[in-house]
Amino acid sequence: MADNFQVTKDGKLKHLLSIDGLSKEIIIDIFNMAESFLKIGSRDVKKVPLLRGKTVCNLFFENSTRTRTTFEIAAKRLSADVINLDIPTSSQSKGESILDTVNNLIAMGADIFVVRHGIPKTPEIIAKAVNNDVHIINGGDGNHAHPTQGLLDSFTIRRFKKEFSNLKVAVVGDIKHSRVARSEVCALSTLGVPEIRVVGPDNLMPDDLDNLNLIHFNDLKKGLKDVDVIMMLRLQKERMEDGDIPSEEDYFKQFGLKRDHLRIAHPDAIIMHPGPINRGIEIESEVADCKQSVILSQVTFGIAIRMAVMTMLISKKL
Amino acid sequence: MADNFQVTKDGKLKHLLSIDGLSKEIIIDIFNMAESFLKIGSRDVKKVPLLRGKTVCNLFFENSTRTRTTFEIAAKRLSADVINLDIPTSSQSKGESILDTVNNLIAMGADIFVVRHGIPKTPEIIAKAVNNDVHIINGGDGNHAHPTQGLLDSFTIRRFKKEFSNLKVAVVGDIKHSRVARSEVCALSTLGVPEIRVVGPDNLMPDDLDNLNLIHFNDLKKGLKDVDVIMMLRLQKERMEDGDIPSEEDYFKQFGLKRDHLRIAHPDAIIMHPGPINRGIEIESEVADCKQSVILSQVTFGIAIRMAVMTMLISKKL
Amino acid sequence: MADNFQVTKDGKLKHLLSIDGLSKEIIIDIFNMAESFLKIGSRDVKKVPLLRGKTVCNLFFENSTRTRTTFEIAAKRLSADVINLDIPTSSQSKGESILDTVNNLIAMGADIFVVRHGIPKTPEIIAKAVNNDVHIINGGDGNHAHPTQGLLDSFTIRRFKKEFSNLKVAVVGDIKHSRVARSEVCALSTLGVPEIRVVGPDNLMPDDLDNLNLIHFNDLKKGLKDVDVIMMLRLQKERMEDGDIPSEEDYFKQFGLKRDHLRIAHPDAIIMHPGPINRGIEIESEVADCKQSVILSQVTFGIAIRMAVMTMLISKKL
Repeated sequence: MADNFQVTKDGKLKHLLSIDGLSKEIIIDIFNMAESFLKIGSRDVKKVPLLRGKTVCNLFFENSTRTRTTFEIAAKRLSADVINLDIPTSSQSKGESILDTVNNLIAMGADIFVVRHGIPKTPEIIAKAVNNDVHIINGGDGNHAHPTQGLLDSFTIRRFKKEFSNLKVAVVGDIKHSRVARSEVCALSTLGVPEIRVVGPDNLMPDDLDNLNLIHFNDLKKGLKDVDVIMMLRLQKERMEDGDIPSEEDYFKQFGLKRDHLRIAHPDAIIMHPGPINRGIEIESEVADCKQSVILSQVTFGIAIRMAVMTMLISKKL
Repeated sequence: MADNFQVTKDGKLKHLLSIDGLSKEIIIDIFNMAESFLKIGSRDVKKVPLLRGKTVCNLFFENSTRTRTTFEIAAKRLSADVINLDIPTSSQSKGESILDTVNNLIAMGADIFVVRHGIPKTPEIIAKAVNNDVHIINGGDGNHAHPTQGLLDSFTIRRFKKEFSNLKVAVVGDIKHSRVARSEVCALSTLGVPEIRVVGPDNLMPDDLDNLNLIHFNDLKKGLKDVDVIMMLRLQKERMEDGDIPSEEDYFKQFGLKRDHLRIAHPDAIIMHPGPINRGIEIESEVADCKQSVILSQVTFGIAIRMAVMTMLISKKL
Repeated sequence: MADNFQVTKDGKLKHLLSIDGLSKEIIIDIFNMAESFLKIGSRDVKKVPLLRGKTVCNLFFENSTRTRTTFEIAAKRLSADVINLDIPTSSQSKGESILDTVNNLIAMGADIFVVRHGIPKTPEIIAKAVNNDVHIINGGDGNHAHPTQGLLDSFTIRRFKKEFSNLKVAVVGDIKHSRVARSEVCALSTLGVPEIRVVGPDNLMPDDLDNLNLIHFNDLKKGLKDVDVIMMLRLQKERMEDGDIPSEEDYFKQFGLKRDHLRIAHPDAIIMHPGPINRGIEIESEVADCKQSVILSQVTFGIAIRMAVMTMLISKKL
């Protein structure tokens, strides 16, 4: 179980590898700390010295300027030094092993690693190998997990909907291959959301639907009926190449979120998307920009959540 | 008109998109602030906390390590956090739109964007779309404008020549396609330089020569007669590929600045170049390094000018 | 001689170009300062303001994320601003000359350059051209020198063995083409190591073996007999392409360090490697991780050594 690595016996967050294994209490602690960082974000000087003298390594084996930038901004706002290392997996194969790379950076004084890798559980393997003073954040590992995204998404819902206990949430798209969907579903379920729907074609649903207590809809209109939260997923183009998805036009016709759908959902429903959005593919352009869309708020809250996670990892043991 | 976007009703600089639309007063304000930053540059600790807690995004859709570095150094010297984003235009076309990228970075807390893009007016389009707390600096947009270069060039002239009102200035090279030339000419004209000459072959002159009040010479010797300032332009190699310029040797023979020319100009004439210089193509190597050359001073002054612009953008509204 | 450029008449370190030309006294000064930085590395806030307001340029014409990162971390821990410039030699050839690039960066306010280049003595050429306020550190130049590696290696030996005057040291691998080996041998010899052995095939030995006072062994077992320090070199793959080295398997069989060898050396012998290690090629994986291996300590000490060098370069003249 992942929780053995993520949380100490005293209940302190040690690594953030997946939402799975995190207690509701720890998630709420992260949210509360994120709230205080949101206030800092609106101040004139947006910087706090909490990670001064600490070194955060962004170790990205999968290229993602966007995600890397969110961690870079979060770390710099905490006054940490940031080292960006983009390591193409191709060069990795010839060179030293990942653990050798990590151990070298630890010897140089790295305190926190944000690891993104195409192979599931790579961050966990690293977390198992490092000593107590070093902390690993999973920045996305294959189709396994993307825990900071799961946290920021549920934090966004809390900010707009206050309570989780009376919500209907629909996650729309390729659930099967999405690390974002897995982390979202796990967070919402831990936080007590009573009804989580997954909407998409049958072949893009996970095999363990029933275990996850998810209700499957393969019709978008039915799936969105009366929901409070619509979480769109980004269309992974590589799925189309694999033949899992017929064409962008067809996908948009069946599962793209359009203006008409908003009348089916609850009138106050919020629209979410992890970004970057493909306008006109998974979401109609005007819907992405409408009043119910909280997509840019997710980005803002994501910085606060990442600041909160880094601060909790580094804070002294009780 | 660009000025609506660049300057608030109260006369505050809001964006820097082009010299066109900037009043003489604002340009002089920038120069005076740059003077104070020049003094800081010679101190032992070259850093001031004016942009502490602010985030400057270098958003470069055209690769330019050199220009990006000048903005990065200027921002760091003001204690800002700097995020460098090199986005190849090729990848841009497939992904999210530029405005989506910008809006995401604003949601992360970016305060200033330095935008370089191959398509003219891209920085202006962004400036129109963002809200009041975000500021855009044009770092070069196609053949349209490069306002910080225009400012640092005229600031360099003020430093060496004190007064603009009695100067003869020659700009030499491909005026037609040069964003640097356009910004230089506009700055000098606003600052009251009475005689601006443009020297180069007919086919590299702009169509609106007369509107710009420029005197055209297609003979270098005649063009340099008695001038106080010689501003060389960098030869754009892509012009040669288009057939606008026959060969490097031929260009150097006709329009390359050589030792002999210095006797034609005013004895105290200064020699300028926006860099990086092509030695032996647009300028003879020994001329680039001679006492009258102020090419490296331009670089030093460029940091002070960029610090001044960023500080004026971020300073509170009156 | 290099020493004219590296050390002022008053004995102050001005540039670090090669170990050759450095006195034992200066090396010991660097070591003593590095000791104080090691203590900082174990503090909660690992940062000191010694280089605040200074700009360190990592000017890498040869790609090396690892080495660049060590200088970046060292500079940031001293509170310097760091500018990373990776300039592929290919683009260099078309563009401005290296000295023009350097002079531009100096005009922007750069204080220290870390230069890595494939052509030997490039850092020295730059050092000769710059003025007194600018300092050059050789970050590796062709097969000539890698002085910070030589310093950190001998500092590691001092930390584990206390005295140099009674040591037997073996350097194993391709001595001929290794800038690391040259810098190591020079440092150890200056520090008074009485017996330096070089172990490897005849064709990978330098021509000036006798001048360097080295004892050559082409048999690994004989070379390691009773040594206190085993310094492995990284196998340069390009040597294999040149046919200097037959195959990885063959090389490992003859010159790879294996568990059995440790019984031949002194029981307290330490095992060193400049990294990144090729497990199973120049060193058996379990030997790299065994108790006698100090490979990761070298990395930690390397940060302290680089901090010490930068601090000594920048400190005011007496």
